[in-house]
Amino acid sequence: MKSAGIIVEYNPFHNGHEFHIQETRRQSQADVLIAVMSGNFLQRGEPALVSKWSRTKMALHAGVDIVIELPYAFAVQKAETFAHGAVFLLNALKCSSICFGSERGELLPFIQTHHFLHQYTEQYNDWINTYMKKGLSYPSALNNAFQKLNPTEDAVDLSKPNNILGFHYLNAANHINKQIKFMTIKRKSADYHDEYFKDSTIASATAIRKSLQQNSSLEAVKSFIPDTTWMELNNYKENFGQFHHWEDYWPYLQFRLLTMESDELHSIYEVEEGLENRLLKAARQANSFLAFMELIKTKRYTWTRLQRICTHILNNCKKVDMKNTRKDPNYIRLLGMNELGRLYLNHVKKELPLPLVSKVSAFPREMLQRDLIASSVYAHGLPEPKKSEFLNLEFKQPPIYFRSNHISNR
Amino acid sequence: MKSAGIIVEYNPFHNGHEFHIQETRRQSQADVLIAVMSGNFLQRGEPALVSKWSRTKMALHAGVDIVIELPYAFAVQKAETFAHGAVFLLNALKCSSICFGSERGELLPFIQTHHFLHQYTEQYNDWINTYMKKGLSYPSALNNAFQKLNPTEDAVDLSKPNNILGFHYLNAANHINKQIKFMTIKRKSADYHDEYFKDSTIASATAIRKSLQQNSSLEAVKSFIPDTTWMELNNYKENFGQFHHWEDYWPYLQFRLLTMESDELHSIYEVEEGLENRLLKAARQANSFLAFMELIKTKRYTWTRLQRICTHILNNCKKVDMKNTRKDPNYIRLLGMNELGRLYLNHVKKELPLPLVSKVSAFPREMLQRDLIASSVYAHGLPEPKKSEFLNLEFKQPPIYFRSNHISNR
Repeated sequence: MKSAGIIVEYNPFHNGHEFHIQETRRQSQADVLIAVMSGNFLQRGEPALVSKWSRTKMALHAGVDIVIELPYAFAVQKAETFAHGAVFLLNALKCSSICFGSERGELLPFIQTHHFLHQYTEQYNDWINTYMKKGLSYPSALNNAFQKLNPTEDAVDLSKPNNILGFHYLNAANHINKQIKFMTIKRKSADYHDEYFKDSTIASATAIRKSLQQNSSLEAVKSFIPDTTWMELNNYKENFGQFHHWEDYWPYLQFRLLTMESDELHSIYEVEEGLENRLLKAARQANSFLAFMELIKTKRYTWTRLQRICTHILNNCKKVDMKNTRKDPNYIRLLGMNELGRLYLNHVKKELPLPLVSKVSAFPREMLQRDLIASSVYAHGLPEPKKSEFLNLEFKQPPIYFRSNHISNR
Repeated sequence: MKSAGIIVEYNPFHNGHEFHIQETRRQSQADVLIAVMSGNFLQRGEPALVSKWSRTKMALHAGVDIVIELPYAFAVQKAETFAHGAVFLLNALKCSSICFGSERGELLPFIQTHHFLHQYTEQYNDWINTYMKKGLSYPSALNNAFQKLNPTEDAVDLSKPNNILGFHYLNAANHINKQIKFMTIKRKSADYHDEYFKDSTIASATAIRKSLQQNSSLEAVKSFIPDTTWMELNNYKENFGQFHHWEDYWPYLQFRLLTMESDELHSIYEVEEGLENRLLKAARQANSFLAFMELIKTKRYTWTRLQRICTHILNNCKKVDMKNTRKDPNYIRLLGMNELGRLYLNHVKKELPLPLVSKVSAFPREMLQRDLIASSVYAHGLPEPKKSEFLNLEFKQPPIYFRSNHISNR
């Protein structure tokens, strides 16, 4: 059985993601499609709109055969670490190919850019340092350094988030397994950061989230997401009363900051020298997460990076914790599968280099500690009694199982 | 100018406290009355019903001339440490006498008991250890050990909270300044722990709090508190919308517990070996503070001690923090005064052995760190926008000043 991998967040799932799944199947000719998905906190340093369980159902409904979790230690990270964790896990599950979305949908520029930067590593790093010293954020420094090397015209545009991720997937595979075959599909119309709807069926997840935040009704997003996703969002709202937004976690972030001294804050992952006092002062002044972010932002730190720092503070994620867990993922957390996925896992089970975790209680808690904490924190976005219900879910919830293979044919 | 000291919490102020003030004045013949008062968190390990500023006003209205704060590091403590901090501060402010409430209102038994225990220290400590090893709580062990020594019939009943405190005041003065003269007044009717009203004008603070918690109206407590206190409670409720209860802090306590690993929890003050896992497990199961307390209580730990532990977790108060600050108070935080109090402070200012803090911003933050954190935590019992308003209060609030000397003559 041949499998293909995709790397996703599904926040929430939309028609563009469905196209990605269909194209991956078509291009890879794989029997089985495996998605590695961020858990309850995402790469951009924010809580997912709905839980990983709900997003797993969306994925299975849309035809993914197996969904595994990208652990917190790799999900809430810059592109390089995120990519490493995701490619590592897909490789562990024996995926022979990985398909990602990009701006132009051509793989060759990625390969050329990869080789090009490999050739000029030293100059590249020098320029990055130069730009960082000038006070630029890391992503801006990367992009500016790249431009300084005078890449050919058909090089990848490394200012686009999807391209940056794709570039790092190739890079990661170069270290992990050079045999992995890459494919890329062109993103359909909507730009990653688009906040408004431009097309009638394709919108960015950002625009969908914005609409869900602004409208109490889910009708406005109906045409941009599969029916099964729409129903899942409705179920979630009915069951838990709300979606998850940073603002719901603000009181806890503020509480945490106001009970820390600066040396403890400095022990939190990614909190660099000099940022502590800025964070502590803003925590006292701000009365919302947005107000807090506005107070702490600078040219040096991207919004995304600051959000990740806030997520680490909220999750009490320390530098020392990350040192211990960061190198490679050491477990595969199964979130969901259909019948085909189950057969595939039975087939490869004996060759898996990592333990496959389907029941949390059967594994030493330390191994999963970061993800368990993330799940507890995530529950705090809900009021009681839903919070309590949610808190126990992580220990009781078996992987979602779809008996049949729902390949969506909308 | 001669001054007398009293040690109070005023949670809230009531007619029994007013009697205490009047009797202290009468018996001590002092010109000035100084109260050292617990801040926003109290000896029993709970948030005060209303802020220290509001309780300071109640005290000034009732005729206290100076109110200073017993720092968190001494207030949220067992009787011995609480007494040491309070007597130390009153002595620093040159009080020549201290008057406390007791069950029988006779000082001699306290002096005799003090001497008696001094004589039998070794046997006493042996018995305490014996009872502790049997699994008794510390206060029960103390009381049982005392009984084992066959004290005379007129010895102090050391099973009563007020008597225990009084005993420790005398003990503390023995180390700090043997010249301090003690007086004691008989508590009027209401028992410390009484939960119901028995008398028409005197009720315990416990009964008053219980009534305030159960009734949305303040009318039920009107006859047990001075008019000025009643108005202050009304103002507080009108301004902040509510009083402060442990349940309001439960989400933050739970959040904090669920984001800690057991070794970090063990670093919190008073969290002893073996309690960590019990606390962490209960945090996952409970959906209220009361439910949490019911889950963690054992014969070994009194309810009060467990509440103090919860308060320390909530305040992120570590063992190492307390090691640094616990020996003696090193500042006098002025909360309020009337004109007479101001004159007295001017009079003794030059002889004070400790800095008198009336403006927080004028002192290094480290010195007051514990109290500033306690104030930030306390604010989290209120919803926005009151929380933000409250958060900034600590830095802006000057000591409460009453131009005239309101000696209440009800």
